[in-house]
Amino acid sequence: MTTDFTYYTPTKVIFGKGAERQVGSLIKELHCKKVLVHYGSSSAKKSGLLDRITESLAEAGLEYVTLGGVVPNPRLSLVHEGISLCKREGVDFLLAVGGGSVIDSCKAIGFGLYHEGEVWDFYDEKRKIKGCYPIGSVLTLAAAGSEMSSSSVITNEDGNLKRGINSDSSRCRFSIMNPELTYTLPSYQTMCGAVDIMMHTMERYFLKGNTMDLTDELAEALLVTVKNNAYVLKDNPHDYDGRANMMWASSLSHNGLTGAGNSSPGDWAPHQLEHEMGGMFDVAHGAGLAAIWTSWALYVYKENPSRFARFGKNVFSLEQSGDSEKDALAAIKATTDFFSSIEMPTNFKELGIDPSPAQIEEMAEKCTFFGKRTLGNFMNLEKEDLIAIYKMAAK
Amino acid sequence: MTTDFTYYTPTKVIFGKGAERQVGSLIKELHCKKVLVHYGSSSAKKSGLLDRITESLAEAGLEYVTLGGVVPNPRLSLVHEGISLCKREGVDFLLAVGGGSVIDSCKAIGFGLYHEGEVWDFYDEKRKIKGCYPIGSVLTLAAAGSEMSSSSVITNEDGNLKRGINSDSSRCRFSIMNPELTYTLPSYQTMCGAVDIMMHTMERYFLKGNTMDLTDELAEALLVTVKNNAYVLKDNPHDYDGRANMMWASSLSHNGLTGAGNSSPGDWAPHQLEHEMGGMFDVAHGAGLAAIWTSWALYVYKENPSRFARFGKNVFSLEQSGDSEKDALAAIKATTDFFSSIEMPTNFKELGIDPSPAQIEEMAEKCTFFGKRTLGNFMNLEKEDLIAIYKMAAK
Repeated sequence: MTTDFTYYTPTKVIFGKGAERQVGSLIKELHCKKVLVHYGSSSAKKSGLLDRITESLAEAGLEYVTLGGVVPNPRLSLVHEGISLCKREGVDFLLAVGGGSVIDSCKAIGFGLYHEGEVWDFYDEKRKIKGCYPIGSVLTLAAAGSEMSSSSVITNEDGNLKRGINSDSSRCRFSIMNPELTYTLPSYQTMCGAVDIMMHTMERYFLKGNTMDLTDELAEALLVTVKNNAYVLKDNPHDYDGRANMMWASSLSHNGLTGAGNSSPGDWAPHQLEHEMGGMFDVAHGAGLAAIWTSWALYVYKENPSRFARFGKNVFSLEQSGDSEKDALAAIKATTDFFSSIEMPTNFKELGIDPSPAQIEEMAEKCTFFGKRTLGNFMNLEKEDLIAIYKMAAK
Repeated sequence: MTTDFTYYTPTKVIFGKGAERQVGSLIKELHCKKVLVHYGSSSAKKSGLLDRITESLAEAGLEYVTLGGVVPNPRLSLVHEGISLCKREGVDFLLAVGGGSVIDSCKAIGFGLYHEGEVWDFYDEKRKIKGCYPIGSVLTLAAAGSEMSSSSVITNEDGNLKRGINSDSSRCRFSIMNPELTYTLPSYQTMCGAVDIMMHTMERYFLKGNTMDLTDELAEALLVTVKNNAYVLKDNPHDYDGRANMMWASSLSHNGLTGAGNSSPGDWAPHQLEHEMGGMFDVAHGAGLAAIWTSWALYVYKENPSRFARFGKNVFSLEQSGDSEKDALAAIKATTDFFSSIEMPTNFKELGIDPSPAQIEEMAEKCTFFGKRTLGNFMNLEKEDLIAIYKMAAK
């Protein structure tokens, strides 16, 4: 049975070469006057992208201030700095120039500007979000899907806590997507992006209960496309269509489309398992997901082998034996092999980490919010299950 | 090469059983005060739907006026009546309760309220649209996709002219989709809806030039789902999942998703050929599309047989011979057979019309806006081509 759902993707997508030159007029249409240009590393400066953006802002008669330095697993301390800066300068629009980390940092700044008090309270589930300052993005990384999603993930350095929250109020007003801006991304990061994109749909795909036909078909279509285009980009990082497909898939994979009408928001255990890996070892998110997924899948697939079998058939074109357990295992192997073929890790060793039993225990404990929650939906996972999955990945 | 595009679907979708009871609070959130409840036939009254809606409006403290009587191929005269009524009553929100015709009529009223002067001027391409009054919809028919689209089609009784226009300003603020509201729809109309839904994606699929991988995959996924669920609903009109898939597909098929990144907005010749059939004979839109599509396809397929071959392979699971002309013809036959199997007409005779040569000439002339345009993108069609296609369908 199709489940009730709300679907809301108000973000206006401006997709194509040179699209960043429209940024000034897009913000002006929204009647905003002063912009925070928020970005990550110096590459946005060196490439000339920041100059093109600030020129466009100036042409539209907009004032701006800049704040760089966002890192992967974006930090609460920089969010605090951004909030202070924006208040001091009277900023009324937040422009993220980067990938998911920069956009998520902007969302956190937006929550902080909208409400009084400590912004971490929202991430720590102590208070409910009521609104957010308007945000736009110029995307330079196809991965997190934050450019069309309602979610934001921030790391609090105090305790190394990585927490995600969702609010429609933080969805970007617009997102500018120029695939050429991702040409210079190293292959490793490109493939991390491909894994992250796939996983946003796979988390929604593997669940207990019913799914909607149309959503299943669209999800599989997206996964096939990302898989194919990962190979294209492995051979030719400057393939425009490959970059374009990856970028558009990143948005569609996390804006709600590939989960609409399904009986739950999805599983999300692999993401949560990875969050703690990222928190402890600062690994790249996509690589961490690839490194934990196989262990998760092997641990849970018996709950509903035919779901994995269908995945193998429709995403990896696997012949079906009719024995769903066998077909499920073949699907997991095909996925693992795919990750390997795009040079992504499929266990902790390949990821370059070797967590001690105490570290595994700590990650599992943090996953459960110190005993406050269990993980997963395809299979409900308690702390001991999480430890078992981490141990499988560590073998 | 992926083509630049803008994707903008701000409509908030509230999907599920009883969702219409949320209508009052949704309008209140938008700070509107007085609502036009616009609808079609008396069935919305008899079924109790209108009562549930007006109760919800009253509970939210909203005033309302009602205007029924919208017919398929909605009329300009009723649009004029609606504009006068809304001005007189101080209406600030337009609520469409129905399918595409009612929503399109609301959009026209919304344009008329936003601007001074004659609203037909926009449809007649004499003036440009600058805005629209806010619109919401409670969908009772899965077909036109107007609930998430930017388009509106109105018929001017003076000259029997049917004209469509597009404006983002007229996209619904919300659309309430309760699949149960379509249970009572007769099979013929349900299947007309299925054809219309498929055709909105097929018009975007068959074009000259390049398409985006992801868009092609998503388009095929949607078409497969609609085809499968048409069969489900043929056997069981009260199948909730069948109705749900059809309803969600109707929105996704016409909101821009299945055309993003393609080298043109699509072909649209079948739609335009059908518009004039509808204008002259008042046939059901979906049935008219089915009746003209095969002739159109057989007339144009040689421009790019491999596109039709791919369509046959991925939508109808046809084995490929490798001879693209042969495979294209097989794909056209499979589509025609599918229309027949859901009791849709595939030529004029089955549609129950028998246009005279003079009528064919008149329809072709009107298609070209009296010599002002040609039709199509997959193949550019002039008046003689349109006459030839109409004649093929009339054989």
